[in-house]
Amino acid sequence: MPLPELKLISRLRRYSRHQRAARSRTNAIATGIGDDCAVLRIPPGHEILATTDFSLEGVHFRREWHPAESVGHRCLARGLSDIAAMGGDPIAAFLSLALPKGTRQNWVDRFFKGFLNLAAEFNVSLAGGDTSQSPDGVLADIIMVGSVPKTNAILRSGARPGDRIYVTGELGGSAATLDLLYSGRKKKLDPRRFPNHFFPTPRVNIARVLREKQMATSMIDISDGLSTDLSHICAESRVGAKVWASALPLATVAGRKVDLELALHGGEAYELLFTAKRGIRVPTQIVTVPVTCIGEIVRRKNLTLVRTNRTRTSLPVRGWQHFQQPTPDK
Amino acid sequence: MPLPELKLISRLRRYSRHQRAARSRTNAIATGIGDDCAVLRIPPGHEILATTDFSLEGVHFRREWHPAESVGHRCLARGLSDIAAMGGDPIAAFLSLALPKGTRQNWVDRFFKGFLNLAAEFNVSLAGGDTSQSPDGVLADIIMVGSVPKTNAILRSGARPGDRIYVTGELGGSAATLDLLYSGRKKKLDPRRFPNHFFPTPRVNIARVLREKQMATSMIDISDGLSTDLSHICAESRVGAKVWASALPLATVAGRKVDLELALHGGEAYELLFTAKRGIRVPTQIVTVPVTCIGEIVRRKNLTLVRTNRTRTSLPVRGWQHFQQPTPDK
Repeated sequence: MPLPELKLISRLRRYSRHQRAARSRTNAIATGIGDDCAVLRIPPGHEILATTDFSLEGVHFRREWHPAESVGHRCLARGLSDIAAMGGDPIAAFLSLALPKGTRQNWVDRFFKGFLNLAAEFNVSLAGGDTSQSPDGVLADIIMVGSVPKTNAILRSGARPGDRIYVTGELGGSAATLDLLYSGRKKKLDPRRFPNHFFPTPRVNIARVLREKQMATSMIDISDGLSTDLSHICAESRVGAKVWASALPLATVAGRKVDLELALHGGEAYELLFTAKRGIRVPTQIVTVPVTCIGEIVRRKNLTLVRTNRTRTSLPVRGWQHFQQPTPDK
Repeated sequence: MPLPELKLISRLRRYSRHQRAARSRTNAIATGIGDDCAVLRIPPGHEILATTDFSLEGVHFRREWHPAESVGHRCLARGLSDIAAMGGDPIAAFLSLALPKGTRQNWVDRFFKGFLNLAAEFNVSLAGGDTSQSPDGVLADIIMVGSVPKTNAILRSGARPGDRIYVTGELGGSAATLDLLYSGRKKKLDPRRFPNHFFPTPRVNIARVLREKQMATSMIDISDGLSTDLSHICAESRVGAKVWASALPLATVAGRKVDLELALHGGEAYELLFTAKRGIRVPTQIVTVPVTCIGEIVRRKNLTLVRTNRTRTSLPVRGWQHFQQPTPDK
């Protein structure tokens, strides 16, 4: 059964008490769950970051494909990844959660297990939220509040012609996993074998290094796919980009490298896409994650894909509609 | 049709540009819609307030009863009322909005009209959010960020035995309006004649006065009904309360005073409930809204209703389940 709001809140509060260590370490949460608002403190000289992301059943996940732990993990990962994309430090999460009649307590507990394990990894407190009965399906909305030293946020608008383009990790792994599920060849996948999709790691720690070393001129996360998110950087920076096809770090899923198309357009990933001035030495690995140079920013305002044989084609921006369609190009 | 995310975002951005006046006045929004996070600034010496509230079709509103402007207004009012309940100043709103296939553009525009009119009234910017297709019904989640001078937030936990209990405005008006709709006697009500329910005013300005004059020892908003919300203050403050039935300011709806039961247990209202030390002179009106003393805090941890003939009965805590049931006691 869905718990009445008060019961769920008292449960949330108990959950969040387990996080007291995190809270007292940072002293960021002056008042948490149980009042009309949470009261947060940020370090002096910092600005506040805030972001919100839906995780809706049937749109962002399917209960038959995603174990509850994965739904909880991915829900929080979406928020953490947005904080990372600004070069920020996450502070507190708020969760609005609506459950349909008949949701089993066990599902809810496992959802919170996935959510809170990831929260603990990044020293983030669950500081509040809302609960409701849902008219249909599990509906979650994650709100993340973070901070960044004043004027140090890494925006989408800072890319300049000549800058090199970089990505963290590998591309297309999450979308290729979804492909396997959509193809019907697999009804269920072992989440531990497909962590890119089921338990992605938001790149908060890499982002912090980039900010501290002032390496990145612009940044975004690749939740909507490389072509779409690169187009956002280009639009906000009023520039264009060349992407070198052969340089793209293709993920390996179920024993084979993913297609170039999935690497270019597949979403549901939480890698970072950033630019850095040409002269800057960007390490090939940051906190053990590979960082790859995949292209360059140009003055002319469109996206070009450069293939190994040096042919150039326009790079279309396909957009990623989450689970509305099987894969962006099939 | 539901707009694709980018279109809706560019529309949101245009909407929010109209609010530039508000932004530049406060300089609170360093980066708004169009990046991975919004970047906010709060005044030095302030703490951050954050809260989130669902507005789900069929749970918190019905499209056949509530005009789109009212849905947008009430959505934001829920967030503003939580900031008021802490004695805070609202800064920025974030809106997660999922629309079912087939939602008409006109409905969306009117929703934003209601939302942004109220935002302008309280000098609040729409600084970001998320959009999605909804599996079923209109789903909105409002996130409000505000601020309050350090350690000045008015919590639920500050009530002490001997304190007097106060409410702003009148009680039961919103619930009585819902009753009219549920009774079937009225299929549709003219929203202008029932503003308590369709266009409630969050009590931000009253709360600011209470904070500045340090008048309130505890505070909450009455969105879940007087008995429920008073029980929250009592639980957090570890005290009990006596409520004087004859003192309750009953609202007038469709020409008659609402029932005592609705005043005690009806929700969907955005009045403030607060306590103040016995000696303090609390004005009978603050920013033109009546403020009424309705009882006192006592040491014994339960709620008592004192009637005119001095009989005392236990005041049950009924809880308010939004639209899940017609009225709390029928």
